[in-house]
Amino acid sequence: MRKILIIGSGKSTAYLLKYVLDKSVVENLFITVADLNIESAQKLIGNHQNAKAIKLDVFDGASRAEAIKNADIVVSMLPARFHIDVAKDCISFKKHMVTASYVSPEMQALDEDAKANGLILMNEIGVDPGIDHMSAMQVLDRIRDKGGDIILFESFTGGLVAPESDNNLWNYKFTWNPRNVVVAGQGGAAKFLQEGAYKYISYNRLFRRTEFLNIEGFGRFEVYANRDSLKYQSVYGLDNIKTLYRGTIRRVGFSRAWNIFVTLGLTDDSYTIDDSENMSYRDFVNAFLPYSPSDSVELKLRHALKIDQDDIVWDKLVELDIFNANKRVELKKATPAQILQKILMDSWTLSEDDKDMIVMYHKFGYELNGKTYQIEANMVALGEGQTYTAMAKTVGLPVAIATLAILNSKIKTPGVQIPIAKEVYQPILKELGTFGITFHEKEVPYLGYNPLNN
Amino acid sequence: MRKILIIGSGKSTAYLLKYVLDKSVVENLFITVADLNIESAQKLIGNHQNAKAIKLDVFDGASRAEAIKNADIVVSMLPARFHIDVAKDCISFKKHMVTASYVSPEMQALDEDAKANGLILMNEIGVDPGIDHMSAMQVLDRIRDKGGDIILFESFTGGLVAPESDNNLWNYKFTWNPRNVVVAGQGGAAKFLQEGAYKYISYNRLFRRTEFLNIEGFGRFEVYANRDSLKYQSVYGLDNIKTLYRGTIRRVGFSRAWNIFVTLGLTDDSYTIDDSENMSYRDFVNAFLPYSPSDSVELKLRHALKIDQDDIVWDKLVELDIFNANKRVELKKATPAQILQKILMDSWTLSEDDKDMIVMYHKFGYELNGKTYQIEANMVALGEGQTYTAMAKTVGLPVAIATLAILNSKIKTPGVQIPIAKEVYQPILKELGTFGITFHEKEVPYLGYNPLNN
Repeated sequence: MRKILIIGSGKSTAYLLKYVLDKSVVENLFITVADLNIESAQKLIGNHQNAKAIKLDVFDGASRAEAIKNADIVVSMLPARFHIDVAKDCISFKKHMVTASYVSPEMQALDEDAKANGLILMNEIGVDPGIDHMSAMQVLDRIRDKGGDIILFESFTGGLVAPESDNNLWNYKFTWNPRNVVVAGQGGAAKFLQEGAYKYISYNRLFRRTEFLNIEGFGRFEVYANRDSLKYQSVYGLDNIKTLYRGTIRRVGFSRAWNIFVTLGLTDDSYTIDDSENMSYRDFVNAFLPYSPSDSVELKLRHALKIDQDDIVWDKLVELDIFNANKRVELKKATPAQILQKILMDSWTLSEDDKDMIVMYHKFGYELNGKTYQIEANMVALGEGQTYTAMAKTVGLPVAIATLAILNSKIKTPGVQIPIAKEVYQPILKELGTFGITFHEKEVPYLGYNPLNN
Repeated sequence: MRKILIIGSGKSTAYLLKYVLDKSVVENLFITVADLNIESAQKLIGNHQNAKAIKLDVFDGASRAEAIKNADIVVSMLPARFHIDVAKDCISFKKHMVTASYVSPEMQALDEDAKANGLILMNEIGVDPGIDHMSAMQVLDRIRDKGGDIILFESFTGGLVAPESDNNLWNYKFTWNPRNVVVAGQGGAAKFLQEGAYKYISYNRLFRRTEFLNIEGFGRFEVYANRDSLKYQSVYGLDNIKTLYRGTIRRVGFSRAWNIFVTLGLTDDSYTIDDSENMSYRDFVNAFLPYSPSDSVELKLRHALKIDQDDIVWDKLVELDIFNANKRVELKKATPAQILQKILMDSWTLSEDDKDMIVMYHKFGYELNGKTYQIEANMVALGEGQTYTAMAKTVGLPVAIATLAILNSKIKTPGVQIPIAKEVYQPILKELGTFGITFHEKEVPYLGYNPLNN
C-alpha cells in the first residue's frame, strides 16, 4: 500500500480526500488524515477501510516527524505559515510534499535540498494560485510552440455566489476568508503593464477603475486590479510583454458600492475605534461623517459622497443595515475593518442551501507572422453544497491529482516548484476536465488594451 | 559672564541669536554657537564681541561634553532626533536645556533626573508647538480662573506665504520642510471630538472636509484636520471637553486641489516607481491613469476625477506644469511623493524677495453661570526676508526669551516640560508682544460646532 498523509481537515480537504479514497482500492492507497481536531478528520473519512484519522499537533515535532516518516507522500492543507516545518521534515525523511499555498521564501530556500534528494515539493496547486497557472501556461506554451510572440496576458479570478443563490443586491457572499475581502487591495498601489507602460492605481481609485467582462451563460462581471500583476511575469516567460494585468472578479456594481466604504475609511485596519463595543452600526458610520445637531446620517453620507437620490448604490447600503441604530457592534477596541467585516457577515454569510461559484477568465494576445491574434478562455465551477463547494473542489482536486501523479511518477522533476511545466499541467488539466473543470476558449479579433472595446 | 551654548545654526537660529546678542551686554551674556558647519555659525555672529562660533560634531561625545560643560544653559536647535544625547549630557553636567521640538519618550524619561538635579529641560517652545501652547493656555486658564467650564477648543496654525508674495494660484509656497507638506495627513485617520462624539476622517477625505475661517485684514482661510487633535487633551486639562479639534491652515481652495494628488496616489511614499529617472512630468501623471491609444492625459484626468471644463481647480494643475512632456523627473527609483515634491519645488520655492507668514487661530467655548460664551483669538506674523522669516522669528524668539528667563530664574520649576504653566507663558507672551507677536481676541456669540455657522 502507498501511504498518503494529509495534514489538516479544513474546508478544502473534502474533495481532495474523496478523490484519493475513490482511487484507493485500484491504486492501492492508504490515507491518513491528521488534524488537531480528530473528529473533523474522522467525519470526512467515515468508515472507509483504506483510511484512518489521527490526532496531530503540528507544533509537536516528535509526533509530526513520526507521522511524516510513516508516509510516502505528504499533503499539507494547513494555513500557509505552518507548511515550513512539515517541509523540513519531508526533506529529512525523503518524502514528496504537496500544498496549495504560495511559495514562501523559506519554502523556496529548500529547493537545493529537495533537488539533491530527488524530492518534489509542489506548491500553488489549488485554484488561485493553481488552476490559473496551469490553464494560462497551457495556452501560453501552445502559442510559443507555434512561434507566436505573446504581447498581452490578462487573468482574472473570483470566488462568488452561484446564480441560484445570488439573492442580494451586491450579488456577493463570503465564500472564503471574509477578512481578505475587507482589506483587499490595501498596502500600496496596484501595479501592472498596459501597452508597454507601467501603470499604478492608488487604493482610493482601485474600485473605480474596474473593467467589464462577459461569460456566456453567466452574464456580465467586473474586475478590479490585483496589487501586483507582475509577480509571475518572469516565471511565465513574459519579460517582453506589453500588457500584463491580473484582477479579481465581482458582479457588476459591487466595486462602485464598495468604494463608498473605502472612501469613508471603513476598511481601515490600522487603528482601533474607542468604545467600538457600545456603538450601533449607525454610530459607526456616523463617526466618519461631520457632526450635525439635526442632519441625518443618511443625508450626510449622500452629501459627502455625492450619492444622488435615485442612485441604485444606495439600496446596497440600506440592505446591509448600516444605518441601524439598534444593532450593536459588540467588538471591543476594534478596527474599522473588523467592524465592517462583522456588519457584512450579517448579510453575506452563506446559508445552508447556498452554493458558491468560481469564475476564471484569461485573455491572451499574440503576434504570429506579422498578424495579431487574441484568445479568450474562461472556466466556471459551481458548488454542490456546503461541504462540496466550488472553492473546495477547485482547490482540493488539483492537489489530489498532483499527489497521485507524483506517487505514480507521472510528475518526476524534483525541486520546490509551482505547476507551470507541461509535465505537470497537462495530465492535471486533462483529468480536471473529467470533473467538469474545463476552459472554454475562443479566438476573437485582437483588440489590445482599450477600455472602449470591452 | 553667563554662558549660553546654542547647538545648530539652522533656519531658526537667526532670530534666537539676534535676541541674545542684543541683550548680551546688558545681561552679561557670552554666546557660543556650535555647528558642524562653522562658517554658517560664524556668518550669523559677525564680529560680535560677546559671541564665538565653534565647530562641533554632535556625535563626538567628548567634544559635545566639553562644550556643554563650559555652558550655563544649552539650547539645542538640532533636528529633534539629535536632542537626546545633548539632554543626557545636560543632566550629567547640571545644565538647563531648551528645545523647540516635541518631547520624545526618551526625553520624557529624563524628567525625574532633571527634577532631582533642579534642572529645567524646556521643550516645544517654538511656534507650533510653542506659541500655540502658550496662547491657548493663557485663555484657558483665564476662563477656568473665573469659574468657567471649557466645552470647545479649536486650534489652527499654518505656515504660508505673506500677502505681498502671494502670487500663485495655490496661494502657497514652501516656507518650511517641503516633505512634511507632501505627506501631511498620512498614516492613519484624523481623529477629533465634535460635540461629545469621536470623529474620524480617512486620508482619502481629509482634504475634502475643510472648514473656513476669517482673519480681519487677511481674509479667508481654510483648515484641514490634524491627525491627532486629542494629543494635548489631558495636558491642557480638557478631559471633559465636547469639541476638540486641531488643524492646519491653508488659503481657500488649496485643499480641494491637493485632494486631486491624494486621490490619484501622487502623495504615496510607500513604494518606488520603476524608471522614474527617465519619466517626464506628464509620464508621471499618466502612470496613474488608464492607457489609451489616443486620449490625452488631460482628458483622462478630468474624466477620472470628474473635473468640469470650467472648474478653476484645473488652472492650479496647469500652473504646476504637471502636463509638461519635456521636464524630466530625474530622480532614480523615487516614490510618487518624492516626485511630486520635486514638481512642487519648481513652483513653490521662495524666491529671494519672498516673505512668509505664520497664521494662528484659536476658538474657545465655555459655560459660566448657565450661559455659553465664545472667544476667538488670532495671531499673524509676517516675515521680513529670507533670513528673518516669520517662521524663524516665531520659533526662535520664544526659545530665546525662555533661555534668558531660565538664566534669570524667572522660570524656576524643574523637570522635562512644555510651556503650559503660567510661570512660563505669562512673561514670554508679554515679551513676544513687544516684538509684534500678539493675539487679537474677541468675544462672539457661542455657536458650538456647526459647519453651517462658519
